[in-house]
Amino acid sequence: MKRIDIQDFDRSSCPVFRSVGEIGDRWSLLIVRECFLGTRRFDDFRSNLGISKSVLANKIQQLLADQILEKREYQEPQQRPRSEYRLTHKGKDLYLVIISLMEWGNKYLTAGSPQLLTVTERQGEAVGHLHLVSEQGHPLERKDIQLTAFEKG
Amino acid sequence: MKRIDIQDFDRSSCPVFRSVGEIGDRWSLLIVRECFLGTRRFDDFRSNLGISKSVLANKIQQLLADQILEKREYQEPQQRPRSEYRLTHKGKDLYLVIISLMEWGNKYLTAGSPQLLTVTERQGEAVGHLHLVSEQGHPLERKDIQLTAFEKG
Repeated sequence: MKRIDIQDFDRSSCPVFRSVGEIGDRWSLLIVRECFLGTRRFDDFRSNLGISKSVLANKIQQLLADQILEKREYQEPQQRPRSEYRLTHKGKDLYLVIISLMEWGNKYLTAGSPQLLTVTERQGEAVGHLHLVSEQGHPLERKDIQLTAFEKG
Repeated sequence: MKRIDIQDFDRSSCPVFRSVGEIGDRWSLLIVRECFLGTRRFDDFRSNLGISKSVLANKIQQLLADQILEKREYQEPQQRPRSEYRLTHKGKDLYLVIISLMEWGNKYLTAGSPQLLTVTERQGEAVGHLHLVSEQGHPLERKDIQLTAFEKG
C-alpha cells in the first residue's frame, strides 16, 4: 500500500464518513446503547429513551435496513405475537464506539450525576478501559499515533 | 459504589447520552475528524467537508461553546488577521471515538473504496488497533464485558 498525502485523501472513501452516515445521529447511537443495556422491545426503547413513536419507528427501520439491528418474532403463551430487536454482529461491533463515547462522557460530562455507567468484566467487578495498542501489543498514547491515508492495492 | 439494576439507571445520568448531546451528529463528528487530519482553517473545513458556510459556522460555534475546539488568531506578513480552530484537550480526547468509528467503518463499510484511512504510529508504519483491556492489562473481548450502572458515593 502506498501512503498518500492527507490532502489527496478522498473524503468519500473515509471510514469515519461512512460510519457517521449510518449511525452518526443521537437517536441511532442511543438505540444502540439501549441494546447494550439489554433493551429489546419497542415500548421499552420508547420509554427508556423518551422518543416519539414515529421517530423511533423510523430509526429502527433504518437500523434494520443497515443490518445493525435484526427483528425477531416471539410469542408468549396466551399473548399476541410480538417483535423484539437485537443487535446483529455488525451492530454488536459498535461496542467500542459506545464505550469510547461513554469513557469521554465519564471524563468530561458526568461530574455532578448521582449514578455511573461503566464497563465491567462479566465475571467480577473489575472495570475495563479502552486503549489503543500497536500490532506488537504495546499501548499507544494519543501523541504516539496519527491517522494515515493509503492508496489500496 | 453500589451496583444498581439497569432498569433503575437514570438515563439522563448516562455518559453516552451526555456525549451524544455534544457530538452526536454527523457534522460535529466530521469536523473533529478533520481536525485529526490536520485541518485548521474555516475555508479548508468547508471544502473538505462540502458543508455550507452557515451550517459550518453554527457547528463551530457550538464546538467552541462546548470547549471541544478553541479559536486562535494569527497573522501572516502582509495578510489580514485570520482565525484557526484547534482541538482542546477535551477535543483531542475524542480520538478513541473517531478511531472506533474508523475501525467499524473499515470493517463493514469501505470494501469497495480505493483508499484507506487507518491509525499508524507516528514513528514508523505499524498500524494500531483499539482494544478493551482490564485494569490488570489483559485484553477483553466483547463477550467478556457488560455495561454496569452504579450509585455513586
